[in-house]
Amino acid sequence: MQINTKVNGSLSNQVSIHDRGLLYGDGVFRTMRVSAGRVLCWQLHYQKLQHDCAALGIICPESTLLAQELQSLLQQHPDGVAKIIITRGLQSERGYRPLSASLPTRIISISPPPQFPDKFGVEGVKIRVCQTRLAHQPRLAGLKHLNRLENIMAAAEWDDAQIAEGVMLDLAGNVIEGTRGNIFAVRAGQIHTPDLTHCGVAGVQRDRVIDWAAKNNVPCKIELFSLTELIAADEIFLINSVVGLWPVREFVDQNGQNETWSQFPISKQIQKWLNSADA
Amino acid sequence: MQINTKVNGSLSNQVSIHDRGLLYGDGVFRTMRVSAGRVLCWQLHYQKLQHDCAALGIICPESTLLAQELQSLLQQHPDGVAKIIITRGLQSERGYRPLSASLPTRIISISPPPQFPDKFGVEGVKIRVCQTRLAHQPRLAGLKHLNRLENIMAAAEWDDAQIAEGVMLDLAGNVIEGTRGNIFAVRAGQIHTPDLTHCGVAGVQRDRVIDWAAKNNVPCKIELFSLTELIAADEIFLINSVVGLWPVREFVDQNGQNETWSQFPISKQIQKWLNSADA
Repeated sequence: MQINTKVNGSLSNQVSIHDRGLLYGDGVFRTMRVSAGRVLCWQLHYQKLQHDCAALGIICPESTLLAQELQSLLQQHPDGVAKIIITRGLQSERGYRPLSASLPTRIISISPPPQFPDKFGVEGVKIRVCQTRLAHQPRLAGLKHLNRLENIMAAAEWDDAQIAEGVMLDLAGNVIEGTRGNIFAVRAGQIHTPDLTHCGVAGVQRDRVIDWAAKNNVPCKIELFSLTELIAADEIFLINSVVGLWPVREFVDQNGQNETWSQFPISKQIQKWLNSADA
Repeated sequence: MQINTKVNGSLSNQVSIHDRGLLYGDGVFRTMRVSAGRVLCWQLHYQKLQHDCAALGIICPESTLLAQELQSLLQQHPDGVAKIIITRGLQSERGYRPLSASLPTRIISISPPPQFPDKFGVEGVKIRVCQTRLAHQPRLAGLKHLNRLENIMAAAEWDDAQIAEGVMLDLAGNVIEGTRGNIFAVRAGQIHTPDLTHCGVAGVQRDRVIDWAAKNNVPCKIELFSLTELIAADEIFLINSVVGLWPVREFVDQNGQNETWSQFPISKQIQKWLNSADA
């Protein structure tokens, strides 16, 4: 089997069972789109990696080192999805306490492009709401860390390929995100996205949309809102670094009731900009 | 280097970087004391493993298989700490959603006995309170899963070998547990331990103490209480499967204020029973 993964710079698809990433989910990661041998939005992803490592006290490898290791894999696999995992490294003695000297483990892998239909981005997607709620943990909120059981439980709730994504609420009932990306609502020409102070992952594309809004004088409110307020929006869109922007054309609730949207003027404008800038 | 670890039955200290245990912390574990070639409380640990796997929809390997793999390692290492990790297994396609068919990965390792002073169990320990709070997540509460960043952040808060453990509170300020074990308070002849409906790990030794109380007609209340109530207790003790029972002889708060205990009659009675039964 061809190995398209590197662990600490060497071609390998194995990691020690004493790695704290495995033992405790003690690490962070990024998932990035690769096109024509380039990692899209690399600088922004690296900034997030640095930020998230710092938040957990993990030493973040140098940008040039990671870029070089990525590049060597991209020569064979110029299109697809790149993933970087940085863990706190090997556990030198048993127990949760991290030793300050621990050297991080860097794991880089490339996989094929996602298999979602192109029409998801064009015609929009059908979504639902998840029963699994996100816990409030301000110390971890915003970070893309390796403790992802909540997302797993939420993603396991449905098995209908027609439903592209599930909306996750927090324990208080606020809309927070999708199981694998951020969410925006458009209301009367304003864009809204949940405040992620208490839970959720603050993705690179979320930042880009917020930047787009500022540059285009479109008001952008970062605040909590309910599922009812989400569904009352003029437009809803989902966004992540792997699939880009998906407008929402249908929301189905637990009772089979649905809400539909057929026009996505602002979503499409943002989608176009996201795809052209840093393409 | 001698390998004293098995992955899926083979001597190995490596797992795939596509294992969901590493990717998402998608798995559960047990840490157990080994003495004279025997895993203490094996049946109880296996029951917890089954329970926790079921809660996450992970297929739990058969007890006989795990016992056999443990036994083969214990011949070389009859005393120490055994750890079993069960992950959901390899990820067959990208994304959080687990495939129902995925075969779990079983990782078994043996490490030397813990290096804590014996006097911790005899004279009691000094403890503190952690700033890191436990989030409420009823779907994961009680389980010993691989998403342990909260414990890591809490354990990283102090670096004073004189302080043996930190008390973790939930976001509402209730006492929940230690960073690596359960906590009990003794008050007027009754024992109290926090309700773990919203967060925390329900350990094997906690169940054993609750059983002991029932068999000895000692009232045992499973309910939430505050740090103030904890400190007002006649006795406090910490418990886990690796070090057993530690009475608390001193609690220091953030301002350096302290509270001390010198008599641990009920703690010592329970400790004696725990050490003799299933020894």
